[in-house]
Amino acid sequence: MNTQVPVGIVGVSGYSGMELARIVSRHPNFRLVSAVSDKWAGKPLGDMLPIYGNAAAVRCTTQAEALSVFPSVGIVFLCTPAEVSIELAAPAIQAGARVVDLSGGFRLPLDQFPRWYGFTHPNPGLLADAIYSMPEATENRDALKTAKLVANPGCYPTASVLALLPLLRAGVIEARGLIVDAKSGTTGAGRKGSEELSFSEVDGDFRAYRVLKHQHTPEIERTLSLAGIAGVGKVTFTAHLLPTRRGILATAYGRLCPGKTTADAQAAMRTFVADRPFLRATGAEQVRLQAVVGTNRVLLGADADPEREVAIGFAAIDNLVKGAAGQAVQNANLMLGLDETAGLDLLSGSAP
Amino acid sequence: MNTQVPVGIVGVSGYSGMELARIVSRHPNFRLVSAVSDKWAGKPLGDMLPIYGNAAAVRCTTQAEALSVFPSVGIVFLCTPAEVSIELAAPAIQAGARVVDLSGGFRLPLDQFPRWYGFTHPNPGLLADAIYSMPEATENRDALKTAKLVANPGCYPTASVLALLPLLRAGVIEARGLIVDAKSGTTGAGRKGSEELSFSEVDGDFRAYRVLKHQHTPEIERTLSLAGIAGVGKVTFTAHLLPTRRGILATAYGRLCPGKTTADAQAAMRTFVADRPFLRATGAEQVRLQAVVGTNRVLLGADADPEREVAIGFAAIDNLVKGAAGQAVQNANLMLGLDETAGLDLLSGSAP
Amino acid sequence: MNTQVPVGIVGVSGYSGMELARIVSRHPNFRLVSAVSDKWAGKPLGDMLPIYGNAAAVRCTTQAEALSVFPSVGIVFLCTPAEVSIELAAPAIQAGARVVDLSGGFRLPLDQFPRWYGFTHPNPGLLADAIYSMPEATENRDALKTAKLVANPGCYPTASVLALLPLLRAGVIEARGLIVDAKSGTTGAGRKGSEELSFSEVDGDFRAYRVLKHQHTPEIERTLSLAGIAGVGKVTFTAHLLPTRRGILATAYGRLCPGKTTADAQAAMRTFVADRPFLRATGAEQVRLQAVVGTNRVLLGADADPEREVAIGFAAIDNLVKGAAGQAVQNANLMLGLDETAGLDLLSGSAP
Amino acid sequence: MNTQVPVGIVGVSGYSGMELARIVSRHPNFRLVSAVSDKWAGKPLGDMLPIYGNAAAVRCTTQAEALSVFPSVGIVFLCTPAEVSIELAAPAIQAGARVVDLSGGFRLPLDQFPRWYGFTHPNPGLLADAIYSMPEATENRDALKTAKLVANPGCYPTASVLALLPLLRAGVIEARGLIVDAKSGTTGAGRKGSEELSFSEVDGDFRAYRVLKHQHTPEIERTLSLAGIAGVGKVTFTAHLLPTRRGILATAYGRLCPGKTTADAQAAMRTFVADRPFLRATGAEQVRLQAVVGTNRVLLGADADPEREVAIGFAAIDNLVKGAAGQAVQNANLMLGLDETAGLDLLSGSAP
Repeated sequence: MNTQVPVGIVGVSGYSGMELARIVSRHPNFRLVSAVSDKWAGKPLGDMLPIYGNAAAVRCTTQAEALSVFPSVGIVFLCTPAEVSIELAAPAIQAGARVVDLSGGFRLPLDQFPRWYGFTHPNPGLLADAIYSMPEATENRDALKTAKLVANPGCYPTASVLALLPLLRAGVIEARGLIVDAKSGTTGAGRKGSEELSFSEVDGDFRAYRVLKHQHTPEIERTLSLAGIAGVGKVTFTAHLLPTRRGILATAYGRLCPGKTTADAQAAMRTFVADRPFLRATGAEQVRLQAVVGTNRVLLGADADPEREVAIGFAAIDNLVKGAAGQAVQNANLMLGLDETAGLDLLSGSAP
Repeated sequence: MNTQVPVGIVGVSGYSGMELARIVSRHPNFRLVSAVSDKWAGKPLGDMLPIYGNAAAVRCTTQAEALSVFPSVGIVFLCTPAEVSIELAAPAIQAGARVVDLSGGFRLPLDQFPRWYGFTHPNPGLLADAIYSMPEATENRDALKTAKLVANPGCYPTASVLALLPLLRAGVIEARGLIVDAKSGTTGAGRKGSEELSFSEVDGDFRAYRVLKHQHTPEIERTLSLAGIAGVGKVTFTAHLLPTRRGILATAYGRLCPGKTTADAQAAMRTFVADRPFLRATGAEQVRLQAVVGTNRVLLGADADPEREVAIGFAAIDNLVKGAAGQAVQNANLMLGLDETAGLDLLSGSAP
Repeated sequence: MNTQVPVGIVGVSGYSGMELARIVSRHPNFRLVSAVSDKWAGKPLGDMLPIYGNAAAVRCTTQAEALSVFPSVGIVFLCTPAEVSIELAAPAIQAGARVVDLSGGFRLPLDQFPRWYGFTHPNPGLLADAIYSMPEATENRDALKTAKLVANPGCYPTASVLALLPLLRAGVIEARGLIVDAKSGTTGAGRKGSEELSFSEVDGDFRAYRVLKHQHTPEIERTLSLAGIAGVGKVTFTAHLLPTRRGILATAYGRLCPGKTTADAQAAMRTFVADRPFLRATGAEQVRLQAVVGTNRVLLGADADPEREVAIGFAAIDNLVKGAAGQAVQNANLMLGLDETAGLDLLSGSAP
Repeated sequence: MNTQVPVGIVGVSGYSGMELARIVSRHPNFRLVSAVSDKWAGKPLGDMLPIYGNAAAVRCTTQAEALSVFPSVGIVFLCTPAEVSIELAAPAIQAGARVVDLSGGFRLPLDQFPRWYGFTHPNPGLLADAIYSMPEATENRDALKTAKLVANPGCYPTASVLALLPLLRAGVIEARGLIVDAKSGTTGAGRKGSEELSFSEVDGDFRAYRVLKHQHTPEIERTLSLAGIAGVGKVTFTAHLLPTRRGILATAYGRLCPGKTTADAQAAMRTFVADRPFLRATGAEQVRLQAVVGTNRVLLGADADPEREVAIGFAAIDNLVKGAAGQAVQNANLMLGLDETAGLDLLSGSAP
C-alpha cells in the first residue's frame, strides 16, 4: 500500500548529498537504490554515514557508471557542480527519471549565465523546460506534478527571499532598494580542502566574500519576480562566512512604506507563515541558527522603525536542509503528489 | 494495533529533557502526554522545541504539578538533579508509573553517596530495588522487564566502560591500573548560566575539571564489575571540558596482557560490537565526535603497543543521546519488551 | 628621562579592564599603580593575568577603596558600568586625576539618555564638559590636551563610523539612509554568567539582538556629525552575536552618489588611512577579524555597484582593543601629548 | 649601546614563521633583516602580518634565494619541514650564521629517523653536532653559547616533558609506565589546505591521530633522559586534535611512588617552577589554554591519588610560542648570552 519510489543520488559524498542520503533513508515513500560518488565507489553507504535500514546496504558507484543508474530510478537528485548537472540532466530524463538538480545549472535565465556563472549555458532548450521551485514563494505545484527537471533553489536565495517576500506581499516595504546582508556556515562552500577554509583560518574569523559578485544575487531578484513582486529591480546582496558549520541568517533591509509600523511588519510574517508548514514566525531576536539546524524549518522575524523609514526581515535556515537537501525532498514530494512534509519531520540533532 | 505507551518527562527544558522530547515525539510506540518544567510551564512544547505532531501540543506543567502526572503515564523519565529524582521516584512508582531516572540518584551503592555525591541517600530501600542498566554491559534484560525503577548510566561511564569492556572481556588488558582520559562537550554541564561556562571563557580553551574527584569514577568501577570483570579495583578517571557542545571521547589505557597484540585489541572490539546494534568498531583515528553526534551510536576503536605494554581503547558517544536521553529510551524499550532500537534510528542532524 | 605617568584602572577584572592592564603593563610611559576590582581584591595582578614587571605586583583593591586611588594617579581608566562611571568621574577629577571613561556614561547628549540608556543623567554639568574622542574621526587633539574627562567611544560606533566616514568625506555616498549591519564576538557583552551567553547556547549559533533599540545607534549618528558630516539624520544599525570571542565586522551600506564608482570608494579608503597610523585599507574580502584581533588596528575596505546605486564599506576591529582598551590608551596618549601609538604596537597574539 | 643581532627567518609564511616574525619584530636585541617564503616572495612583511617598525619593511625572498641570506645574519631560524631544514642547515653554518631549527630534523638520534620520520638522516655528522635544547629541562646553557646548530623541541614534547619532569625529579612518580594524553589546537598541523583539517570537519569534532606512531614519542623519552631521569624506558603518548586554533594541554599519568601524596606532587611543581621564569604552578583545574595562548608561559599543575597509586601532571602551552617560535627565541637568547626572557614578555592577545 505504501509504494516506495526508487531514488538515486549523484554526488552522495558531498555535504548536500550526505544530507540527502540521511533524509531519503528515513523517508516513508522513498527507497534509495543508487548512490554515486567517485570517492566512495565500491563502499556500502552505511560504512560512510550513520544511516540505517536498506539505504545502509546500497553500494556506491562511480560517476562514470551514473548513466546506468538513471533507468532504475523514479527521482534522481543531482548534488553535483553546475557543469556536471547540466551534462547529466538530459540523459537522466531520457532514461525516464525525473530530476531534482541542487546545483545552479538551471536557476537563471540563459543570458545571465556568462556573467554570474562564468560560462555559456550549453543546453538552452533544457534550461527553458526547467521548473525553478521554492515552494513557499513560487507556488507552482501544478507545474511540479509533471516537471521532468526541477531547479532546486540556492541556500542564500531561500533565506533571502523568505525574509523579504512576506514584507513585500503585505506592502510593508518598497520593492526597490532592497539589501540583504547574509551570513552562512562553512558547509555552504562544499566538502573540500583549501587553506582559506581550514579550521585555523576560519575559527575566530569573520569576513565577507564574493562581494557584489555572488551568483545568488540574480537568483534572489528573479525569485521575487516569480513570486509576483513587481518592480524589484536590483537587490544588493552580501555573503559572509561564519565560524560555524551549518546555518544561514539573512538580515534583509527594505524601505518602509509610508504609514507602516513594526506591528504591520510582524503581522506580515505571521500571515505569511500561516499555511506554510515549514515556516514559523517569531521575535526578531529569536531567529537563530540553533533553532533550525538539522531541520527543514525557516524561522522568520521582523522589526521596523518609522523614524528611520526602514523595516528589517530576518530568516534563519539550515543551509544543507531547507537550503539544499530538505528543500529538494520537499520539491520531490510535490512532484510525486505526496504530502509536502513527508520524510521531513526532522529531529534537530544538533541544537542542544 | 500499534498501541502507544503514554510517557511523561520531568525536567523537559534541560538539555537531556529536550533531547528526550525530540526522541519521544518520533517514537512509534510512545505518546508524550506530560512534560514538566517550571521554566516552560503553560507553554506548548512545540513553541519551545522544533518537534512535530501531538507532542508539539503538550502543554508544560510546573514541577509542583508533577505528582498529578504520574498516574496517567506508563513510563516517566526523570531528567532532574539527583536529589529531586530521589524525591520523585517513590510517588511515581506508587502512582503506577515505571521510572527511568537519568540522574545519579540511584547509580551507586548506598555507602558511596556521601563521598561522591555529598549526601546520605535518604531512601536506601528504593535504592536497593533500582536496576542499573547500561544494556551493552550489564545485560540484565529480564530484570528490566519487571523493573519499577531503572537507573540510567552517566555519560562518562557509558563511554568509559564501552572503551574498556571489550578489551577486558577478551583478556587483552589487565583489570588493574586502568586509566580513562575523557573529554566532553559543554552540554554535559547542563543548561545554565555561569561565568566559567560562558562562551567567552570556553571557546579557545581546554582544561580538566573535578580532577580525581568526579562522581562518575566509582560508577565506572561498579559497572565493570556488574559486567562481570573481576578484580577491577580502582580506575583513574579524568574529565576535560572541550570547546564544543556535544560528544564525549574516552581514551582508555590498560596494561597489555602478555602476548597480546594490536590485532587482538581490534578483534576484541569487532567481536564485542557484533550483536549490539548501536555499537560499531572502526579504526582508532575514525572514532570521532562528528560521527556520533545526534545519534545513539557508539564508535569503538583500539590499538596496542607490546613494546610499551599498553593497549588503548577509544569510544565516542553523544553525551545527550547514548550518554543520556537515547540510552534512557533504549532502557525503556527493553522494560516494555520493545525492540531495543525502536525510535532510535536517529539521523545525525549535526554531522555535516 | 623616561618619566612615567602613574595610572589606575577601575574595573580591572572585566574584559576591557584586563586588556587595559596588559597594555598599560607594557606601555613605555605608563606605570600601573592602582587596580580596582571587588572580585580580585587583595590579590596581586600577576596572579590573575599573564603580565610581567611592576604591574604584576600591584595588589587589587575594592571599589569602595577606589576614591583613595584617585589622588595618586595621573590618568584613571574607568572600566565600569555607565552608572558607576558617572558616580566615580567627579571625585576622580576633584582628586586631580584625569579620566578616560570606557562606559557609555558620557557619550550622548543629555536628552538622549532616557531613551537609549534608560536613565536620566544625574550630572549634566560634567556631561557637558566631557570630550568625546574617536581620534580618527573627531580629531579634537587640542581639546584632549587639557581635557579632564574623555568619553571613549563604544565598540560598534568605532567600527561603524570608520566604515562610513571615508566614503562620506569623499562624497562617494549620501549622508541619508545609512545602514550598518554589524557582527561582534561575545566579549562585547562583558564577563559574566548568563544562560544565553553560555557556550552551549552560542556555539553554532548566530542571531541579532537589541534590534532597532541598541544604544550605540545614536552614538554613530552623533559621531558622524562631530566628524563634520552634515545631514546624517538617522542611521539604521543592527547588532549580531558571532560565535567567536573577539572582533567586530561592520558592513555599512550607503546610497552611491551619482557618477561614483568602485574605484572612487576604494580611493576614499586609501586617502583616509594615509596619515592615520592604526588604519589600513585593503580589499573588501581581506577585511577580517583574524587580522585585527589582539591589535589596535582597523582594517577598511570598500566596494560599489553603480547599477544597484550602492557602496559598501567594511571595517574590522578588535572590540576589546580598538573598540575599548586600545582606543582608551590612544586617547590617554593624546591627552598627555605622547605619540598616539605609544604602547600600542601590539603583537597579534591570537591570529595564527 | 643596544647592539642588535641581524636575524633571518626561513619559512616565514607558516604559522611558526609568522609567530617568529611577530616576536623578532619587537625583540630589543634582534633586527629582522631577512624573511624567506616562496608564497610571499616580493612582498614587504608588513603587508602580510600586523607588525610594525623596520621588520614591516623587510621584503620577502624566495627559498631559492635563501642561501644568499645566510652570510648577512647572526641567527637564522629555520621554520621549514625536516628535510628542508637538514638541507639548509649546513650552508647556513658555513656562511657564518648560527642556526635554530624548528623542525624535527635534528631532534632524535640517528638510528631513530627511519622508524619515526620515515627517512635515513642524510647528514649524520651535523646531527651529531646539533644541540637539542629545552631550556627548563636540558639546562645546557654553556653548550648553547657556542652552538652552531640548535634543535628546538617539538610542541608536544615541550608540554609532555614539563608535565612529567618535576614529578620525576622529586621522586613522586616512577620512571616506568608513563602515559601522556595530549590535546592540541589545529595550528600544530601547519598552514595548509586539506579536507580533514577544514573547518567543516574539525569544528564540533575531537579525535586522536597518529595513534602509537607519533614522532614526538621518542623525543619525549629522549628529553627525559637528557634531563637526567634514569630508567624512563618507553612512554605511551597519544595526540588528539582539539577544535581550537592554538594551545596544547598534556595530561600525564605516572605511577605514584610509595608514600607520596597530592601535597608532594604539588610541592614538586612549585619547587620546579621556582627559578624558571616562564613556568608557573597552579591548581590542576587552572591549567588551561586561554591562560597561555599568545605567551611563552607554561602552566603546570598536579594531583595524586594514593588509593589509585597514580599522580597526574598537567601542562598547558601555546604550541606556536613556547611550543615553537617563543622557545626558539628563548634558545637564541641563550646562544647570544642575552637574558632568557628578552623579547618574550608577550601580551596574551587572545585570552579575553
